[in-house]
Amino acid sequence: MTIEAIRWNADHARLELLDQRLLPGQEVYLELTTIESVGQAIYDLVVRGAPAIGISAAYGIVIGRNQYADTADLLAAMARLAEARPTAVNLRFAVDLMQPMVEQGADSTALLEVARRLHQEDIAANKQMGEHGASLLKAGSRVLTHCNTGSLATGGYGTALGVIRAGHAAGRIEHVYAGETRPWLQGARLTAWELTRDSIPVDLVIEGAVATLFAKGKANWLIAGADRVVANGDVANKIGTYSAALHAKHHGAKVMIAIPSTTLDLSIPSGDQIPIEERDHAEILSLGGKRIAADGAGAWNPVFDVTPAHLIDAIVTEKGIATAPYRESLAALK
Amino acid sequence: MTIEAIRWNADHARLELLDQRLLPGQEVYLELTTIESVGQAIYDLVVRGAPAIGISAAYGIVIGRNQYADTADLLAAMARLAEARPTAVNLRFAVDLMQPMVEQGADSTALLEVARRLHQEDIAANKQMGEHGASLLKAGSRVLTHCNTGSLATGGYGTALGVIRAGHAAGRIEHVYAGETRPWLQGARLTAWELTRDSIPVDLVIEGAVATLFAKGKANWLIAGADRVVANGDVANKIGTYSAALHAKHHGAKVMIAIPSTTLDLSIPSGDQIPIEERDHAEILSLGGKRIAADGAGAWNPVFDVTPAHLIDAIVTEKGIATAPYRESLAALK
Repeated sequence: MTIEAIRWNADHARLELLDQRLLPGQEVYLELTTIESVGQAIYDLVVRGAPAIGISAAYGIVIGRNQYADTADLLAAMARLAEARPTAVNLRFAVDLMQPMVEQGADSTALLEVARRLHQEDIAANKQMGEHGASLLKAGSRVLTHCNTGSLATGGYGTALGVIRAGHAAGRIEHVYAGETRPWLQGARLTAWELTRDSIPVDLVIEGAVATLFAKGKANWLIAGADRVVANGDVANKIGTYSAALHAKHHGAKVMIAIPSTTLDLSIPSGDQIPIEERDHAEILSLGGKRIAADGAGAWNPVFDVTPAHLIDAIVTEKGIATAPYRESLAALK
Repeated sequence: MTIEAIRWNADHARLELLDQRLLPGQEVYLELTTIESVGQAIYDLVVRGAPAIGISAAYGIVIGRNQYADTADLLAAMARLAEARPTAVNLRFAVDLMQPMVEQGADSTALLEVARRLHQEDIAANKQMGEHGASLLKAGSRVLTHCNTGSLATGGYGTALGVIRAGHAAGRIEHVYAGETRPWLQGARLTAWELTRDSIPVDLVIEGAVATLFAKGKANWLIAGADRVVANGDVANKIGTYSAALHAKHHGAKVMIAIPSTTLDLSIPSGDQIPIEERDHAEILSLGGKRIAADGAGAWNPVFDVTPAHLIDAIVTEKGIATAPYRESLAALK
């Protein structure tokens, strides 16, 4: 069953976003009729995942064009929209793409065409990377994935989860494990929901059990996405990816990273130059709004980690497959 | 401030157990006046940790002696008590120790003496292993621990947490990190509470961040306890220990296991012969009684993992320190 996290309602010229904060308990679409409400939904994590944020923003600008007669007002609203998640590259990309069009007087029909193209191209890219990635899997592959990289994080289909969908459709995947992905539990809440909706069996594992999962041969692939891949092939991704990659390689399993080519940032030479963002301690000290740790306890809460290129067997994009040495293979892909 | 998880109230001849299910939010002692209620408290996880269970059971038998005039009735109650947690070795040990005394007509005063000796010997053993373990730490050590091995799990002071207490008191520990220990969060709920009560600063980390913790040099020791240590030095402990040990060694940090010598099981030659218990999927699929994963999702939920001896720099008991080759050094300690 196709999951549509982002829907354009042409009849009412509005954006409908699946409220990911309520999954998997409730499937509720928010109907957004102003560019400001789209920005708020991005800020509030109704939609997350860099490609999904960028596509939502593009539709938001279409709504803004209908909303504001004065182009200066729309440009000001777009500037505010771009700030909804300051670190999301795709958000800035969508705004930068549409800004010259708006300045040159494009109407909402022309802007909608661009938003729809962004959306469709993202899905098409995911399906291509799915095919490329699945071609690396042998029959009987047992795959661990981390966080959520599926239809909910992209225009549809997914990056790492797209490879898993394609591999499963091709009959090459025997079993899928999803890391629960503390502290936000995207694996438990989102990835398990997507896979069960697609009738792909999935077992959740805590991050502490990943080493034993590989040691016992229950998994022989780690397939993950990335937030940024730099020139030497080092990969920044959700905290826990580096740990899982170390465990995979230590036990003779393989590691694949699936990303759209726009995630390649060849201006950064190596992973040690990627800043690691740290977030609020409350994400670890509390659970479901309730304090679980004693008063006075602290926390160390990095959001991302860096997996060095030597642990990675293949980096897959819609344009093809890169393998070591990555400096050359990624430059060729880009 | 001394934490007393297990208190004998001599005035009323009753056992007072700190209800660990309510920590850190509430500090409530349950007052137990029957051997049956002690068994129920052990079953209900009011008290957990193998040594703490054994000591509680011993006091429970004292209460049972006051409760039952007929020795046959007491022996029957003791047999039921021994079943409260079938896998807890120390529970069986306490019952087996006191059974011949009961059969030979020992009164509650004689039995109380044995229970108190068990309790005091456990604390003394912990303090000895604390001193032994702390002697291995250099000034400025930065320690990660896992699960809870402190006053709450033992007669008092703790095994791995005892080493950390002794190392901190000796000024050799610069910082302590506690793994939150999914799925039960003993690190977040119990270890952080114990350390803050002792004014030892502690930062919680998710298991997914442990690799990066060691990669960045934030920790240079893993100090953990064990549920069972076998003849070749392989260690079974709470799930997540193997993962943390791999990350420690991969990044040049050291690994110490602290156990009472009663935890050595030299009848088992190597770790691959330790059965790995798997528990209810609901522990991962739900959180705080609320389902978090989609219907249809499964889970793989092993409770323990096995850390191979080659990842371990020292196994510390109250009798001294064992290092590789462990087959010889552990046999000598035992």
